[in-house]
Amino acid sequence: MGFADVIKRLIVGRKLRSSQSGHTLLPKRIALPIFASDALSSVAYAPDEIILTLSLAGMAGVAFDWKIALLVAFVMLIVVASYRQTVHAYPNGGGDYEVATANFGRNAGLVVASALLVDYVMTVAVSVSSGIQNAKSMLTWLQGHEGMAAAVVIIVIMAINLRGAKESGRVFAIPTYIFMAAVLGTIAWGLFRHSVLGADISGPMADYELQADPQYAGITGVAMFALIARAFSSGCAALTGVEAISNGVPNFRPPKSKNAATTLALLGGLSIIMLLGIMILSQLTGTKIVDPASAGGLTSNGRPVNIATPTVMAQLAQGVWHDLAPMMWLVVLATMVVLFLAANTAFNGFPTLGSVLARDGFLPRALHTRGDRLAYSNGIIMLGAAATALVLIFNASVTALIQLYVVGVFVSFTVSQTAMLRHWTRRLKSETDQRVRFAMQRSRIINAIGLTCTAVVLVVVLISKFTHGAYLAIMAMVLVFIIMKSIRRHYTRVAKETAISRSADSALPSRVRAVVWAIDVNKPLARAVAFAQAMRFPSLEAVTVSVDPAQTEQVVEQWEAQDFPIPLKVLASPYREVTGPLVNYVASLRGANPREVVCVFIPELVVGHWWEQILHNQTPFMVKLRLHFMSGIMVISVPYRLNSSHHALARIKRIDPSFANRQPLPGVDDGS
Amino acid sequence: MGFADVIKRLIVGRKLRSSQSGHTLLPKRIALPIFASDALSSVAYAPDEIILTLSLAGMAGVAFDWKIALLVAFVMLIVVASYRQTVHAYPNGGGDYEVATANFGRNAGLVVASALLVDYVMTVAVSVSSGIQNAKSMLTWLQGHEGMAAAVVIIVIMAINLRGAKESGRVFAIPTYIFMAAVLGTIAWGLFRHSVLGADISGPMADYELQADPQYAGITGVAMFALIARAFSSGCAALTGVEAISNGVPNFRPPKSKNAATTLALLGGLSIIMLLGIMILSQLTGTKIVDPASAGGLTSNGRPVNIATPTVMAQLAQGVWHDLAPMMWLVVLATMVVLFLAANTAFNGFPTLGSVLARDGFLPRALHTRGDRLAYSNGIIMLGAAATALVLIFNASVTALIQLYVVGVFVSFTVSQTAMLRHWTRRLKSETDQRVRFAMQRSRIINAIGLTCTAVVLVVVLISKFTHGAYLAIMAMVLVFIIMKSIRRHYTRVAKETAISRSADSALPSRVRAVVWAIDVNKPLARAVAFAQAMRFPSLEAVTVSVDPAQTEQVVEQWEAQDFPIPLKVLASPYREVTGPLVNYVASLRGANPREVVCVFIPELVVGHWWEQILHNQTPFMVKLRLHFMSGIMVISVPYRLNSSHHALARIKRIDPSFANRQPLPGVDDGS
Repeated sequence: MGFADVIKRLIVGRKLRSSQSGHTLLPKRIALPIFASDALSSVAYAPDEIILTLSLAGMAGVAFDWKIALLVAFVMLIVVASYRQTVHAYPNGGGDYEVATANFGRNAGLVVASALLVDYVMTVAVSVSSGIQNAKSMLTWLQGHEGMAAAVVIIVIMAINLRGAKESGRVFAIPTYIFMAAVLGTIAWGLFRHSVLGADISGPMADYELQADPQYAGITGVAMFALIARAFSSGCAALTGVEAISNGVPNFRPPKSKNAATTLALLGGLSIIMLLGIMILSQLTGTKIVDPASAGGLTSNGRPVNIATPTVMAQLAQGVWHDLAPMMWLVVLATMVVLFLAANTAFNGFPTLGSVLARDGFLPRALHTRGDRLAYSNGIIMLGAAATALVLIFNASVTALIQLYVVGVFVSFTVSQTAMLRHWTRRLKSETDQRVRFAMQRSRIINAIGLTCTAVVLVVVLISKFTHGAYLAIMAMVLVFIIMKSIRRHYTRVAKETAISRSADSALPSRVRAVVWAIDVNKPLARAVAFAQAMRFPSLEAVTVSVDPAQTEQVVEQWEAQDFPIPLKVLASPYREVTGPLVNYVASLRGANPREVVCVFIPELVVGHWWEQILHNQTPFMVKLRLHFMSGIMVISVPYRLNSSHHALARIKRIDPSFANRQPLPGVDDGS
Repeated sequence: MGFADVIKRLIVGRKLRSSQSGHTLLPKRIALPIFASDALSSVAYAPDEIILTLSLAGMAGVAFDWKIALLVAFVMLIVVASYRQTVHAYPNGGGDYEVATANFGRNAGLVVASALLVDYVMTVAVSVSSGIQNAKSMLTWLQGHEGMAAAVVIIVIMAINLRGAKESGRVFAIPTYIFMAAVLGTIAWGLFRHSVLGADISGPMADYELQADPQYAGITGVAMFALIARAFSSGCAALTGVEAISNGVPNFRPPKSKNAATTLALLGGLSIIMLLGIMILSQLTGTKIVDPASAGGLTSNGRPVNIATPTVMAQLAQGVWHDLAPMMWLVVLATMVVLFLAANTAFNGFPTLGSVLARDGFLPRALHTRGDRLAYSNGIIMLGAAATALVLIFNASVTALIQLYVVGVFVSFTVSQTAMLRHWTRRLKSETDQRVRFAMQRSRIINAIGLTCTAVVLVVVLISKFTHGAYLAIMAMVLVFIIMKSIRRHYTRVAKETAISRSADSALPSRVRAVVWAIDVNKPLARAVAFAQAMRFPSLEAVTVSVDPAQTEQVVEQWEAQDFPIPLKVLASPYREVTGPLVNYVASLRGANPREVVCVFIPELVVGHWWEQILHNQTPFMVKLRLHFMSGIMVISVPYRLNSSHHALARIKRIDPSFANRQPLPGVDDGS
């Protein structure tokens, strides 16, 4: 325990004041890497999945590569334009959940929330897995340990996030910029060398030929269209993360909406350039990606060869920088790092959404209150655990995980765009200023186009991926939805049950009796008696349960020797148990009068080790459990700290420094 | 949960009153089967282990069979005679632990207790395993599932014992008598048929020859002596359980000592007759037992055959009753049942000893108080769990388990005999009546012979079995000893720490302030406020922690709407946490005055399902945990039962009928 706590303190760092949270407002140059790393980094795996899927049909399929990339870029353009409207319409955090809830009510909001929660988990799992796949092209010893390596990375990211968002931002900005520079530099240098210098930029797979999977060889018509649709669906992974900025508007420096919209436009432009550049360059370098599970694959001089294909980024880097190894390494390393940072986006978004949902009663309240850091520790831990489970189950295979991805994003895109449409329609009803009306109508048209586009993509994604794994994601979303509905229903029921309905609710008890339970005659009992006396009850007595006659005699003798000014009653125990007679006696004291109250004082030892809990407090625990089920009974724990409790206190102080400043005060009759 | 509770109630049955425990005093005819089934049933496996060990040396070894049995019978005679002295000297329960403690102090007592606790576990494991081995000779499908079958049997016996000792006794008497009749009948009929009728009573293994293990073939001198010593040590398993009667003297009908001594003599006589009879008969029937792990084994016409040998009882039954199948079945079945009943002896002894040790502070106090049955449920469950683990680890192999057995019994025999010697020497110093002195001197001589004999056997057992597994048993005993010493030391330290030393200990607090923690404004809070008001504190206020401004505003508004007559203080929460500000405020209220006390009222929801615990009471739990470490703070839980709590109440009622009679009273402002 002690060691683990020290580790936690080292990792989690010191606390931040709530008032410091104003300082975490982000300038655009920091906000871009934090909120856009997800969307930007997806260019590191979206092309892989497009090429891999089309490779099933051999060279005939690969011919569609850049067309699909263009289509994805087009959807990206529309989605970015749509979300710029959202950012302006909801300057206080236009999260898809809030937008859907505000315009279509709780259920629409919950659908979006379920989709987003599942997709946050997928973002972490896919990004980290892709990072590991990239790392593997250089660190070959990772082969066979992908799942474990991804799990370790997720846990490290989780720990960093438990430290709080601000520090993460600064740390993450630089590598994201390095990634952008590396990718754009590679594209520019590659095109320059090929077009202007006429140099050979062939990648490591350029000399192999592609052989179609027999199942897909020579397909045309509907079959080809289905394959293209699947490749497009996978490619749409490039769009995930675009919504992060609209969720994070409150974190921007003022003017928040304008800055957020600008950042969104920047992100969109960068993504499109990188995606198209990578696609063009991958054709020039002869990049090939094959699915190890496919029956097709690479051939050399007509003979099949069985080699694992590196990631697109690794192949590009080797082609473009084959005479400059450090740059080659930099590209792959920067890609890996930015993918890990992308996982961090989810660690920002998930607990924030969880906290909002907890506030609205859809998740346990413990997720709402912040932990001892400004980040929402509980949500962070939940997300980390779920993502770790996924990478371990799927052994960090991006191709397998990507089938579960994207669905959730497009569910929330579509619901959110529908909500925005309704938002503008409502606003237009009351708005009279012609200039503003014009702007709104323009926004409404943009959102309508966005809705059409995302809805079509959603249908394509659902149809093309359902049996490939999307059904799992949908099942998870439905489950999350049902759980959240149930939690809300429970809280509502309890609130109704406990609501104060009539003034009689707070009627004063007519009489309060008090009982001190004498287990042993010792300092804890003396303290309990003293405390009870100080409260001047009209009726106060001590009781002890006689299980063993010899022991009871000793208790009575010691009691009399102490000259306590209250009477001691000995309860017979026909069943040689403690709980029954005590609970029965307390019940009889109160009688049938519902306005009477009985206070039961229980001296309790505060211990420092788990094994001491086995040796002490077992019977008091049982008694308290039973008394809890009786009306009009108050249980008063009078703690007595044993010296060993300092161990536990020291442990708490290490975890919670705010508690460390609080010197425990000298006790009335503590040993200390 | 619900189903499990119903099962528990069905198995555990209704409670017995403490005053009923007088009725469980046992007449000799019931006491014999209960307390002697262990010693009697061991004739079902002791011969097996003697023959198995000697078979390693082939026919040369087997020739020693009956000599070793005679030696074991001789030791039995001496031990029984010795324990008859103990029974007379300690009519109130001459348990070896008490005898050793009374004459040589705590450490000697603890050595005996450690040995006995370990041996109780071994008794259960060995007896049940042997029962399964016997059953296997008829229920061949048990082959390969011995460990699991033994585990199931142990759990069933455990459940029966949780019902209480009395009912067990009656149920167990009949099969034990059937076993005695079956064994004695088999011996008599076998000898009669063989000697008088001259019939063939060859068993199933009679036609095979025995081939020595090459390692032991033709051994003489020291090597042969070592093997004989090992066989004798295993044979001494027949002596285990003799001490059960001296532990159980208080359970006999008066005159307790005399009845117990008579029962002991009966037991000794029966055991010796059965052991020798079985040995003679096993030679006449050509019974052979081989260790499957040995390199030797059975041969037929000089060629080795690989068949598993049934137990001695099964071979005898098949030889003697081969023309009367029902009798054959009866013998094997009765053996199996009586072995299971033998395990029951341990379930009588272990919790009793555990309870005595708990009373003396060597085991957790929870083992001292009886459960909701007259039996000591906690000890029964501990024993059952340990024995189940053993049979699963050793796959119910008697040959493997027997190596760990016997050591403990002879440790306690030896220490106990030494203590008896000292007992008589002490008594003789003060006794003047010449007739009594003569009887005492006679007892002292018997115990001296007993000591010599058991000490020699202990040394033989230790040397011959140490490396074969006895070291494990010794390690377990040392561990148990250290744990018990540590527990006692802990309790002593705590008692010293909490002892009332000066009158100032119970000085009255000079001032009691009270704080009600307002989480939500609802019925639970209204009740807490009403209870606090009724106690007329000189200072009473409510506090709420402001984590979310909107929520706090709502709480303040609702509070004002309720017209509570006490002020509400809003605590700022710079870290957006609840625990810190609340604990700090309570500490500041108390100030530095060690004679001031602060009462913190916490409204708590009593819920009915485990998942409701996740949704409620998490923050109150954290707050209570912290407040416990501060001096002069009393935590007052004011429970409010939700309707769902009836689920939990119903569950408790099913488990504890005494609670069921206690109708929960209508609450001051419960929904009920």
